[in-house]
Amino acid sequence: MKKKYALISVFNKEKIEKICQTLLNHNINIIATGSTATYIKKSGYKCYSINYFTKFKEILDGRVKTLHPNIHASILFKRKNKKHIKEFKKLNFPEIDFVIVNPYPFQEMQNKSSDSNKIIEMIDIGGLALLRSAAKNFHYVSTICNINDYKEFIDILNKNNGKTNLNFRKKMAAKVFEITSNYDSMIGNWITNNKNNNFKIFSHKKVSLRYGENPHQSAFLCKDLTREPIFYDNIIKTGKGLSYNNILDIDSAYECINEFKEPTCVIIKHNNPCGVASNKNIINAFINALKTDSDSAFGGIIALNRNVDHNIAKKITSNFFEIIIAPKFNNKAKVILNKKKNLILIETKKILKNKKLDIKSINGGYLLQQKNTINFVKKDMRLMSNVKISNTIIKDLIFSFKVCKHVKSNAIVLVKNKKTIGIGAGQMSRIDATKIALSKLSKKEKKNGFVSASDAFFPFIDNIKILLKNNCVAIIQPKGSINDDKIIEFANKNNIALFFSKYRFFKH
Amino acid sequence: MKKKYALISVFNKEKIEKICQTLLNHNINIIATGSTATYIKKSGYKCYSINYFTKFKEILDGRVKTLHPNIHASILFKRKNKKHIKEFKKLNFPEIDFVIVNPYPFQEMQNKSSDSNKIIEMIDIGGLALLRSAAKNFHYVSTICNINDYKEFIDILNKNNGKTNLNFRKKMAAKVFEITSNYDSMIGNWITNNKNNNFKIFSHKKVSLRYGENPHQSAFLCKDLTREPIFYDNIIKTGKGLSYNNILDIDSAYECINEFKEPTCVIIKHNNPCGVASNKNIINAFINALKTDSDSAFGGIIALNRNVDHNIAKKITSNFFEIIIAPKFNNKAKVILNKKKNLILIETKKILKNKKLDIKSINGGYLLQQKNTINFVKKDMRLMSNVKISNTIIKDLIFSFKVCKHVKSNAIVLVKNKKTIGIGAGQMSRIDATKIALSKLSKKEKKNGFVSASDAFFPFIDNIKILLKNNCVAIIQPKGSINDDKIIEFANKNNIALFFSKYRFFKH
Repeated sequence: MKKKYALISVFNKEKIEKICQTLLNHNINIIATGSTATYIKKSGYKCYSINYFTKFKEILDGRVKTLHPNIHASILFKRKNKKHIKEFKKLNFPEIDFVIVNPYPFQEMQNKSSDSNKIIEMIDIGGLALLRSAAKNFHYVSTICNINDYKEFIDILNKNNGKTNLNFRKKMAAKVFEITSNYDSMIGNWITNNKNNNFKIFSHKKVSLRYGENPHQSAFLCKDLTREPIFYDNIIKTGKGLSYNNILDIDSAYECINEFKEPTCVIIKHNNPCGVASNKNIINAFINALKTDSDSAFGGIIALNRNVDHNIAKKITSNFFEIIIAPKFNNKAKVILNKKKNLILIETKKILKNKKLDIKSINGGYLLQQKNTINFVKKDMRLMSNVKISNTIIKDLIFSFKVCKHVKSNAIVLVKNKKTIGIGAGQMSRIDATKIALSKLSKKEKKNGFVSASDAFFPFIDNIKILLKNNCVAIIQPKGSINDDKIIEFANKNNIALFFSKYRFFKH
Repeated sequence: MKKKYALISVFNKEKIEKICQTLLNHNINIIATGSTATYIKKSGYKCYSINYFTKFKEILDGRVKTLHPNIHASILFKRKNKKHIKEFKKLNFPEIDFVIVNPYPFQEMQNKSSDSNKIIEMIDIGGLALLRSAAKNFHYVSTICNINDYKEFIDILNKNNGKTNLNFRKKMAAKVFEITSNYDSMIGNWITNNKNNNFKIFSHKKVSLRYGENPHQSAFLCKDLTREPIFYDNIIKTGKGLSYNNILDIDSAYECINEFKEPTCVIIKHNNPCGVASNKNIINAFINALKTDSDSAFGGIIALNRNVDHNIAKKITSNFFEIIIAPKFNNKAKVILNKKKNLILIETKKILKNKKLDIKSINGGYLLQQKNTINFVKKDMRLMSNVKISNTIIKDLIFSFKVCKHVKSNAIVLVKNKKTIGIGAGQMSRIDATKIALSKLSKKEKKNGFVSASDAFFPFIDNIKILLKNNCVAIIQPKGSINDDKIIEFANKNNIALFFSKYRFFKH
């Protein structure tokens, strides 16, 4: 029987012992490069150093060690091509069927050092050449480039008596090219000094969606495989399955609910919050969020930051919603919710907030921006008028401005006791946004007073006038208008508490 | 003096003669691989074949030819490191300071062949290894990976007596890693069968913007360098310079204006059209677009599809706008517009519509969709009620639905004689969008009748009721509601022309 060989060259030596043990169990011989060979031998496994076969000692401080025609011929020759077999035999070199390589940690070095010579040394040439050769020849050669794949590799060897199959080899080959692609994009960005705008979707799994925003547009969801599970991994009841618009709304719901620690409910419709409320009791949070605009809430998406029990489940199912997102649904709640055929349930427990960049496609390119991650707190607002106000009002102002961050511009959010009572979204003029928000108020709500948040400054005095007329007691807005002084004067004269926020919260 | 060498290995041999001539002019010797050497010799230039130095003949049908330690040592050794110099001298190999390589055309083969064996042969291993080695050692080695860079390379050699400089070498090295990154992403996508959703921004020039949607968010514009000039290349008056929000609005204005062939004006505010009008006369188009909602238009962005003369310029400057986009501004117009210090002017003549994919970032990944490129025409609408209607009404319905495509959902657009008279945008409920649009109508406009477009179906009869009450004569909407029949019945009973559109036009 022909002798089989695996070539191992790993920067990160973690868990390599298990690989060695498995390979040797299946009579696969190990060849390793410099420090990997030393480590494997020390760990008690038999292995050849690569230069035993190449007769070429590594030079230039390791810059050249595996860039050798015999090694690459061994990896690259077609196992069923007579000419290839003949040419390879002449080299008198072991046949390498398995390549286990992880490259120099370029990114890590770049993160921890500013010494460009050190960083350059971490540009792996030989390692990537080995990976690419092996991945090219995936019909015959298995390539492992990631420690996370060791288990699957070991399992498949154990199940198949020391062999892998084409599916596995192909999957691993695709991973290689994803990794090398990302690796080189990082290097390119480093050379051109583009540090913080590394954007890539190569390490993503592309999943076809039924369609995009509209049925005539095809669409994909690109899942980031390098991260923890995300909402689309935690669907516990699928209904008709997530649509493009569902995913967009879930993401908005998720962003908004994450602003709040108290029991809170967020209802999203057409990518805008149409009701948000915090309350000691999560069921009241839901009831209050729904009350803001129960007509608009029809068919919307609900996010809750507390577990769903049968009481909330009953309340929710007396209305029509498409999706419920919560940390957990208890069994009694599931019984109730499962009766709604098309309802989608998502458990968010494991969800990480990991989006750092916003990207938008435009003609001729893309717009990238840092995400708006401001956690708005009391010290970010400054009282501009001479009015005494209660702690409750302060809390309501913070709540309203937090909600405002998630409403499309121009946005006006009216709040009473940590519940939205009117939301004016997506308007070309601020006064229209104000009017829309006010149109949601009941007579009682107007009578009892409320606070108001504006995502950007009021350009004129008209907004504050109409708010006052409806009995608004406090306002938060960023500064910046040439009419700021007039607005402050008006607030003082009319005993309205006016706060300037440190931040503007445009969202389009 | 030390002999200098360039290594050439090009799949595409175009224009390589000029490179050879220049290298030889500067006493740089040429080494080339297999077919490149043959080609160069045939073209009458002196060159060495690589195996003259390596003593290694290419094998495996060319799969292994330059993966040789001496070649890579020659490229990779540090020119100022004594140990490296000593080790390299021992190899007795020429010193390669220039590497000119273009890789196998993987993408092209993938496009033209479905034979996976042929495609696999086009996965370049050796070429990319040469490029990556040379680019890693950019302190000393020049790497040319793209025919488009030959001219700059030749110029710099001629200017500097056969040498390049660090800036040039660094720039070319960055290009190498961009190209290898893209190359490997294509391979990865091919292996995993992801053909049509290749998305990358590596071939983009990243330009810092002042900030993103808000001052606390950093932002970049990524210009696609592979395409024709785009709006940001045609700014003829810069004002304060384009902001992130400006660019987003310009893109929307541009998308919307491209719907229309007649003289048309679009005004954008907060990423929504707040007035659109077509007219035989472009100045009337502007006047009519402005009339829709002149309050909201304040500080907006105007796009026109006809040249701007001094008459329109005068009209426009009597209001406050941030940006004007037009195919051309004549000299008299420029004199008038240049007086407005902060106004930005963009000539759009050369602009290509080239965005094919929409991308949105979400937590844990991205959403990609085909752009909504439907050119809505008469055959895409079907009359559902038994009402006779004029050609003018039909034209207005098409106009209104085209505008609707560019208004954020829920969207309602009211039109009379190819001018918008009310736009309801970005609402969580359709009835609110309808009310907002209606609120923009003058008494006269209500009296004279108008048509209405809805980007998605009316869920209930309430919208059509309120439209009729305000004297709406025709409606266009997609079908799809469980109440469709009731809505048709209501339209028939009340003599309102109801059309169903073939397409839905959600936009979020």
